[in-house]
Amino acid sequence: MDTNRPELQTKDDPIRTLIAGWAEAIRSRDIDRVVAHHDAEVVLYDVPPPQWTGIDDYRRSFEGFLSWLGESGVWELGDLTVVVGDDVAYAYCTVRCRGTGKTETLDVRLTLGLRRQDGQWLITHEHHSVPSA
Amino acid sequence: MDTNRPELQTKDDPIRTLIAGWAEAIRSRDIDRVVAHHDAEVVLYDVPPPQWTGIDDYRRSFEGFLSWLGESGVWELGDLTVVVGDDVAYAYCTVRCRGTGKTETLDVRLTLGLRRQDGQWLITHEHHSVPSA
Repeated sequence: MDTNRPELQTKDDPIRTLIAGWAEAIRSRDIDRVVAHHDAEVVLYDVPPPQWTGIDDYRRSFEGFLSWLGESGVWELGDLTVVVGDDVAYAYCTVRCRGTGKTETLDVRLTLGLRRQDGQWLITHEHHSVPSA
Repeated sequence: MDTNRPELQTKDDPIRTLIAGWAEAIRSRDIDRVVAHHDAEVVLYDVPPPQWTGIDDYRRSFEGFLSWLGESGVWELGDLTVVVGDDVAYAYCTVRCRGTGKTETLDVRLTLGLRRQDGQWLITHEHHSVPSA
């Protein structure tokens, strides 16, 4: 969409922009940008156990993931659906994910929960998983 | 919530009631009640693949699950967090899950997305998973 024409923005554009920026930060392995729009009390259901609670745990988890992802890893979001209210939103999508030097591509499912606080959207919950038979 | 009238419901009570009723319907293996508060276009990221889309697929998936769960299965929600806006909400919790006759208990993580349509809350997205190492 044409972001130079703000009258054309839909209500979910700020969320899509936030998520796109977060995904790009992951690909760039820029940990400060990865955690830039998260609530201090974020609850992460990560692909591996355990459950992580709070931004320090979230950051630690992603530091590990970014080093697994490596410099030529894949982290591509697909089929993003965004549902936005006045101050609460959620989003879900698939993620093609592959670490540098790995041959297997993981099909990750991702759900994000967000709140708007003081006019700013923040991610308060993430659920990442791979299906298990 | 209206703190001057503590006898009033908090804003997340309707969501908690809906989720509790859904969980109870699962334990009772009452498929009609399981699907009673879902959007026609619900998108289910189930524990096993594939991704299910629409209420017919959702129902089919749960029919299979309820028969796995059996008459003395376990489906207990824990640590439920609910985030509610005017017309959009999400919730997440853990689920202790065990099929009848199984020895292993699964630690499921569950995220739900909801919308209010014509005054009625409906589940539009569910993400169920078990962590994978």
